[in-house]
Amino acid sequence: MKAEEFREFGKAAVDFIADYIENIRDVEVLPSVNPGYLVQSVPTEIPENSENWRVIMADINKIILPGITHWQSPNFHAYYPTASSYPSIVGEMLSAGFSVIGFSWICSPACTELEVVVMDWLAKFLNLPQHFLHSSSGSGGGIIQGSASESILVAVLAAREQTVKRVKQEHPEWSESDIRGKLIAYSSDQSNSCVEKAGLLAAVPFKLLPTDKDCILRGDQLEEAMSKDLNNGLIPIICVANVGTTGTCAFDDVASLGPICNANNIWLHVDAAYAGAGFAVEEYSHLRNGLELADSLNFNLHKFLMVNFDCAAMWIRDANLVIDSFNVDRIYLKHQYEGLSKIPDFRHWQIPLGRRFRALKVWITLRTVGAQGIKDNIHKHMSLAERFENYVINDNRFEIFAKRALGLVCFRLKGDNDLNSNLIKKITENKKIYMVQGKYKNTNFLRFCVCGMDTKEKDIDFAWNEIQKQSVLVLQEADDLLNGNYMKDLHIKHDSEKHKIMLDSENTILSVDSN
Amino acid sequence: MKAEEFREFGKAAVDFIADYIENIRDVEVLPSVNPGYLVQSVPTEIPENSENWRVIMADINKIILPGITHWQSPNFHAYYPTASSYPSIVGEMLSAGFSVIGFSWICSPACTELEVVVMDWLAKFLNLPQHFLHSSSGSGGGIIQGSASESILVAVLAAREQTVKRVKQEHPEWSESDIRGKLIAYSSDQSNSCVEKAGLLAAVPFKLLPTDKDCILRGDQLEEAMSKDLNNGLIPIICVANVGTTGTCAFDDVASLGPICNANNIWLHVDAAYAGAGFAVEEYSHLRNGLELADSLNFNLHKFLMVNFDCAAMWIRDANLVIDSFNVDRIYLKHQYEGLSKIPDFRHWQIPLGRRFRALKVWITLRTVGAQGIKDNIHKHMSLAERFENYVINDNRFEIFAKRALGLVCFRLKGDNDLNSNLIKKITENKKIYMVQGKYKNTNFLRFCVCGMDTKEKDIDFAWNEIQKQSVLVLQEADDLLNGNYMKDLHIKHDSEKHKIMLDSENTILSVDSN
Repeated sequence: MKAEEFREFGKAAVDFIADYIENIRDVEVLPSVNPGYLVQSVPTEIPENSENWRVIMADINKIILPGITHWQSPNFHAYYPTASSYPSIVGEMLSAGFSVIGFSWICSPACTELEVVVMDWLAKFLNLPQHFLHSSSGSGGGIIQGSASESILVAVLAAREQTVKRVKQEHPEWSESDIRGKLIAYSSDQSNSCVEKAGLLAAVPFKLLPTDKDCILRGDQLEEAMSKDLNNGLIPIICVANVGTTGTCAFDDVASLGPICNANNIWLHVDAAYAGAGFAVEEYSHLRNGLELADSLNFNLHKFLMVNFDCAAMWIRDANLVIDSFNVDRIYLKHQYEGLSKIPDFRHWQIPLGRRFRALKVWITLRTVGAQGIKDNIHKHMSLAERFENYVINDNRFEIFAKRALGLVCFRLKGDNDLNSNLIKKITENKKIYMVQGKYKNTNFLRFCVCGMDTKEKDIDFAWNEIQKQSVLVLQEADDLLNGNYMKDLHIKHDSEKHKIMLDSENTILSVDSN
Repeated sequence: MKAEEFREFGKAAVDFIADYIENIRDVEVLPSVNPGYLVQSVPTEIPENSENWRVIMADINKIILPGITHWQSPNFHAYYPTASSYPSIVGEMLSAGFSVIGFSWICSPACTELEVVVMDWLAKFLNLPQHFLHSSSGSGGGIIQGSASESILVAVLAAREQTVKRVKQEHPEWSESDIRGKLIAYSSDQSNSCVEKAGLLAAVPFKLLPTDKDCILRGDQLEEAMSKDLNNGLIPIICVANVGTTGTCAFDDVASLGPICNANNIWLHVDAAYAGAGFAVEEYSHLRNGLELADSLNFNLHKFLMVNFDCAAMWIRDANLVIDSFNVDRIYLKHQYEGLSKIPDFRHWQIPLGRRFRALKVWITLRTVGAQGIKDNIHKHMSLAERFENYVINDNRFEIFAKRALGLVCFRLKGDNDLNSNLIKKITENKKIYMVQGKYKNTNFLRFCVCGMDTKEKDIDFAWNEIQKQSVLVLQEADDLLNGNYMKDLHIKHDSEKHKIMLDSENTILSVDSN
C-alpha cells in the first residue's frame, strides 16, 4: 500500500469510527448473529492477490459490524466498563505508526521515559503512597501491563520467588521443592477469576477465604486462615486484596489486612482494577487506608480513565524483587545505558519481552481530558449509578443486593434465582441493553454498571424502562405457570410448573415445593 | 473531545504517520538523547484542564520524535524485524475504535470468529499440519497471543499441568509437590531468553542443551540428556525447539526431536517466532519436517507478515489440554452459546482474561497484501540478505560467522572480540544504521538483519558502506594502539595496549599475550 492510499484509507477509517460512535446509541447493543455466522461467510484462504481498501472497508460494514457487541454503547451495562475515548484511539494509531518495541531504553527512549512519566502522573492523581513513584527515593515505580491478570500474576510470581529465597536461607536443610510444595496464597471468594488462575499458573494454590455479609475480606479472616496454615507447616506468600470485587464492587479491608501481611512477611497486592479510580475522589478517600502497606497494586485505565484496553497500570514498591525473580538477559539485549538508575528496563518487570508504546495513548488521553475532566467522569458514573439505584429502591418488586459503589448497582427481583435468571435472559434476548448476573452464596443478582463512552441520564432511564418491561413479562410468565393464580398484591411468582411457591404478604418466599 | 475534533485530530495523525514513514530514510535510525531527556522536560502532574490536540500534536514532534528509535527505518538492522504496514496501522485504529474485549463469543462474535478465520488462513499459508486447524476434525486451532513469550509460557504451563496429572495417575502414592519438584524442561542454549524465563515463571527448570557447531539442537542430544534425567528420577515435560534461533537463526532438527518427545510423552513446542515464515516458501520447505509431531508452535506476524506488534500467532494441537489447565470460570463470564464446538472461548487458551480485537489488523493486512505479496516480501528479505552476504564474502577483513538464513547475516571482523565490539560501538554511536551483536561460545559476532517497513537494495549498500567506514576506523585505532606498527598486509590488530597480538599472513590470530 502506498502512502497516498494510506492517507485515504486512514482518513476513511477515522470517519468510520466517528460515525460509529456518533450513532452507537441507535443500534442494538448486542448483535443478532448465530455462532459461525462469520466463519461461514468468508473465504477459507488468504486471497492470492492484493485487495483494494475500499472493498475491505465495505466488508467491515457488511461482515464485522453485525458481529460487534457494542462495548462503547451507553446501553452496555455488563461486566465493568472498557472505556475508550477519541484521544485514546488516536494514541493507539500513532503508537502503531511508530511500531517500536520498548523492551529497553535504547529501543526507544521516549517509550520507556513517557511510561515513567505517566505512571507517576497517575500515582499522584490517585493519591498513591510515595513508595510507588519512580521519582521517589526507593526502587519502586509503575509500569503498564497488558492486563490486570498479568499484573496479578507478576505479583504472585515475585512473591513466590522471594519467599522461596528467604525460606531457603532460613532453612538451608529444606529442599527447594519441599518449600515450593508448601506455598499458599490468599484472596477472597469474591476475587476475580484471574486471581485463582494466577495461582494455577504459578502452581501456588489460592485459598479463597469467605467474606462477610458485605462480601468483604477482613484481617481477622486472613489471620485465622494463615495461623491455621502456618501450624500445618504451610508457607504463605501473598494476599491479593480486592478494592472493588468483580461481583459487587466490595472493598476488602486493606487497612486490617496490611499489618497481618507485613507482620508475616507476605506480599500484599491490591487488585483495584475497577475501583482504584475511587482513590482519586474525596467520596472514596477511605479506600486509601492501608495502601501504604501494599507491595503492589493494579488499576485498569480502561475503566474510568478513558484509555482503551489494553492498559493495566501496576505499581510495585520494590521493583528489584520482581527483576531478581525474572531477569534472564542475553547479549543482544544489552545496551550501554543499562542499569542507569531511575530509567527502568521494563522487560524485567513483566512477563513478555516485547512491549508496545502504550504510554502514548495514556499521555494523549490524560492531557486531552485533564485531571478535572477525569474526576468529572468518575463523578458522572457515580451519579448515574445513584440515579439507577433510586429507580430500583422506588419499585417494590426489586431489592438492592449490595451497597452501590462507584458506577455499579447490584439488585434483583425479589424472589428466587430463576426469576432473575429469566429476567437476564429476556433482557439479553431483546438486545436493547446488556447486563450480566452475579451470584453470591447461592443468590443470583443483576449487575447494572455504567459503561460506554458517553452514557447520559436518558440512557439510565432507557435501561430502567427496558428492565421494567422485561420484568413484567417475567412476572407474568411466572404467574401463567401458576395457572393464572395471579395475586395482585404478590408480584413474585415462580417460573416452573414443577415447583410451588408460597409467599407472604411482604412478597418474601416462605417455601418452595418441588414435585 | 467532540467527534468533529476527533475527525481533525485523527486525520492529522494519519498524515503525520504517512509523513513519518515517507521520510524515515532521511533521519538517523538511533535517537540523540540522553537518559532522562523526556522525564526532565515534561510537567510532573496531569494538567488540570483539557489541552487542545494541536498542542499535543506539536509535542509529539518536539518531545516524542527525538526519543524514537526508528524500527521501521530501512537502516534498522538490529534484533529481528518488527514490521508494520499501512493497512495494519489502520487495523489497529479500527480495533481501538470498536474497543471490544473478546474474552468470549458473546463479547463480540466477530472478534472470536475472525480470529478463527485468520488463524486457519495463516496455518494453510504456512503449510502447517492439519491438526493445527480449527476447521480440522480434532480439538486443535490457532490463537493470537500477545507475544512469543506468552505463547511459550502457555505451552510450558499446559505441559506442566498435564504431566503432573498423568504422573499422579500413574503414581498415586507420590505427592503432587514431589512430582512438581522433579519436573524438567529442555531447549537449546541458543533459545531466546523468554524460554528460560518461561521456566522461571513456571517453576520448572529448563536445561539449555549444548548445540552443535551450527548452533543446532538434535535428537541425540535431547535423548542423552533426557535418559540421564530419567535415570535420576526427573520428570521431563517439554522440549522447546527453535526454528530460527535469536542469535544466528539456526534451525533445530525438529524431525529428530519430535519422535523422542512423542516416545517419552513430553510436549514438543516449536518456537518459530522469526523463521516460521520459511514454512511458506519452497526454499525452506525442509523446515516443515517434523512439524506433524509438534504439540504447539508460535510465529510472530510482525516479522515477515507486516502486522504490527503485538501479534503472536500460536497453534495448539489439542486445545483441551490448555483449557483443562487454566479454566477458572465465573457466573458473570457465562453465556448461552458457551461450549459450542469449534467456536472457542479464547480466554481459556491464554494467560489474561481480556483480549483485544487483534484479528482485525491481521485480516486487513493479509487481504491488502495478498498471499503472493507476502511471499514476495519473504523473498525480498532473503535476497537483500544475500546481497549483504556477498559484500561480506568479498571483503577479506570479514568472515561469515553462521550460515545466512532468511533475512539474517551473522558476520564478524576477523580477529578478536574487542575488535567486533568496538565496531558495533562505533556504528551505534554514529547512528546511521542500527545493529546488535551476538555471542556464541565466547565469540562475538555482528548480526545484520533486514528489518524496516520498506528496505531496498540501496539501503543494504548504504549499510555496507557505513560498516566499511567504521571498520576502517576500528582497524586504524587498533593499529594506532600498536604504536603505528601497522603492516599493510595485516588488517587485523588489537585495540588494547595491554595486549600483544601475533597474526599470520592470512590475518589469523596466532596468539595474544596479556601483560
